[in-house]
Amino acid sequence: MDPKFVQRLATPAQTKIVLIILDGLGGLPLEPGGKTELESARTPNLDALAARSVLGLTVPVGPGITAGSGPGHLAIFGYDPIEYEIGRGALEALGVDFELGPDDVAARGNFCSVDAAGVVTDRRAGRIPTGVGRELAKLLRTIRIDGAEFFLETVKEHRFALVMRGDGLGDALTDTDPHTTGLAPQEVRALAPESEKAARLANEFVERARRLLADKHPANMILLRGFARFPRVPSYQELYGLRAAAIAVHGMYRGVARSVGMTVLDVDGDTPADEFAALEKSWGEFDFFYLHIKKTDTAGEDGRFAGKVRAIEEVDALMPRLMALAPDVVLVSGDHSSPALLRSHSWHPVPTLLYSRLVCSDGIAEFGERACARGSLGVLPAKTVLPMALGFGQRLAKFGA
Amino acid sequence: MDPKFVQRLATPAQTKIVLIILDGLGGLPLEPGGKTELESARTPNLDALAARSVLGLTVPVGPGITAGSGPGHLAIFGYDPIEYEIGRGALEALGVDFELGPDDVAARGNFCSVDAAGVVTDRRAGRIPTGVGRELAKLLRTIRIDGAEFFLETVKEHRFALVMRGDGLGDALTDTDPHTTGLAPQEVRALAPESEKAARLANEFVERARRLLADKHPANMILLRGFARFPRVPSYQELYGLRAAAIAVHGMYRGVARSVGMTVLDVDGDTPADEFAALEKSWGEFDFFYLHIKKTDTAGEDGRFAGKVRAIEEVDALMPRLMALAPDVVLVSGDHSSPALLRSHSWHPVPTLLYSRLVCSDGIAEFGERACARGSLGVLPAKTVLPMALGFGQRLAKFGA
Repeated sequence: MDPKFVQRLATPAQTKIVLIILDGLGGLPLEPGGKTELESARTPNLDALAARSVLGLTVPVGPGITAGSGPGHLAIFGYDPIEYEIGRGALEALGVDFELGPDDVAARGNFCSVDAAGVVTDRRAGRIPTGVGRELAKLLRTIRIDGAEFFLETVKEHRFALVMRGDGLGDALTDTDPHTTGLAPQEVRALAPESEKAARLANEFVERARRLLADKHPANMILLRGFARFPRVPSYQELYGLRAAAIAVHGMYRGVARSVGMTVLDVDGDTPADEFAALEKSWGEFDFFYLHIKKTDTAGEDGRFAGKVRAIEEVDALMPRLMALAPDVVLVSGDHSSPALLRSHSWHPVPTLLYSRLVCSDGIAEFGERACARGSLGVLPAKTVLPMALGFGQRLAKFGA
Repeated sequence: MDPKFVQRLATPAQTKIVLIILDGLGGLPLEPGGKTELESARTPNLDALAARSVLGLTVPVGPGITAGSGPGHLAIFGYDPIEYEIGRGALEALGVDFELGPDDVAARGNFCSVDAAGVVTDRRAGRIPTGVGRELAKLLRTIRIDGAEFFLETVKEHRFALVMRGDGLGDALTDTDPHTTGLAPQEVRALAPESEKAARLANEFVERARRLLADKHPANMILLRGFARFPRVPSYQELYGLRAAAIAVHGMYRGVARSVGMTVLDVDGDTPADEFAALEKSWGEFDFFYLHIKKTDTAGEDGRFAGKVRAIEEVDALMPRLMALAPDVVLVSGDHSSPALLRSHSWHPVPTLLYSRLVCSDGIAEFGERACARGSLGVLPAKTVLPMALGFGQRLAKFGA
């Protein structure tokens, strides 16, 4: 269902909707026949909430597809993650946890080697150690150009993310990277008039970088490619009239939330308890709250099964603080799965709980993969969950008489 | 999800995926409250595999739609069977188990009656007995024309399938059949330049047939209609980089598999055991195996409930030979349902099992219609199963960071 269709039905209400994302929530048993991380966790509060909820499994992008955090979040926020594909530069910036603004233009960068004639001899500068990359990044951060701010974050070895922030920057830009050795880096060209300013600034940045790196062989030049803004999605305010707030401590999630028009709240500290405190503090001011928990994914990607179990239990222990606020709708889900067994994101559908006093509850007093597989929501595209939450929040008018 | 989207994510892996199609697998109880064929069958091996799998019900074309074998196979092979509709001539050829090649142009044919002026007096030649049709078919098989090979297979009574095989044959061709009596057969016209050669050859064939049949009244002429190639689908190799093999003993299934780019393997014999032997023999050479079992459908279409039960049990007994090869992903499903009660294909969704060591198993130790209805895959379009298998085979890269 197109958000533009839902938009037509959006109607004001006094209800409050809370979306708790446990990043990488879905898991797998370590042994066949065993329990997953979520099934192993002692979660009396989530289990009690499950009994009064409807359960299901959400598919972030499509069957068999492993979602990155960007697309995974767009989906659970109600957008089609394939229609609103996040370009490579923006992905690179989000990937290093950069708080990408909706108008920022990001690019993937490489340190590279050029000869005396300026011809590229090694596109990866001999894969310089990450530490060297960090030192060179400091140098490039000294560049100041009127018209935009520049941010440069090291990714790994010769790789970095470059972000331009300023007014009127388009992202229809060609690469400087010739994608082969034996050629000189190319000028950035604007492919649309709106991108001309950005092209000029990017070329100026590259020229300054060239001068600063002149004696830093093998990393004596940079290459930029994949210029991209975060996709322009219609905001929650515009689509649904929602005053939406985001509570997240990592840049990437703050950036994605800001891009869909959420107000990103300050969190005093960086623990889940600190995030719940921020929720309590701002409870009166917003209609919709997105609260992001990172630890589950970190443990999953590190292969720490027990650590992921503990992260889930930590959130469970905080749930009474949320329920004490008497929210009208609570969603608990993930942006994708991250089984400790796989030490990575995975394609498995994500356990999802939807609570409202208006649900015809499944009566399943357990929050886990297999419990959710038995739930009445079935297996559903993640992007369909938000309209459902709006319905339960009585924020959608009747369609037709 | 478009296969072209999945294509972008395809990534090499060493995993092996096996798709076992029990043709017409889904069934019905003979009496209300009874068991289906699959539920009645003693299937200890499939039940044990089910316990370690995820289960669901696949819908080949759409809810309430009975799939033919062609569309049913295209769907479980991962293609949209409505987008890639199989034209009438190609369907006729497949329907008589002809091993249609991807470039073959097929047509539906009728023997008909014409008067001395060449005007059609009976489009069906008085519905000659099938035996007569077979004799006349032998006569027409003597026709040799430079530029193409011609194959002619009797369907029933006056009906036959004609296939032209050669280079550069298009299928944008008009019918010779005037679709009424009182008119002469029409010349085949090419509706596109690429089809001109095929039009010329078809007209030459009709002229030769007219001469050979001159004294065979009431079957003294032929009519051709519905010229069609198998739809041009992108191949498994092209889409997913899969080296795919097909193990099937009937022409139709071999033809469909070849059309999606599978290598059709030789089978020494025609029993399911012979097919499993072919699988074992070629195990090292391919990434993906499609193994087709015909007997289940034949029994279903004949109304032989017990025969279908036995055919399922025969496959169950062979499953240990497959599992001994340690496949990474196993799909067991059907191309459509064929309940013995109905003696025909039906619209019922098809029991489907997906095994991998990476599934979060449903723990349902039974493979049957009702067991699959409780499975975590839910009810899903058949075309979504292949991407899922690729995901479990770790053959798809992450989408976005």
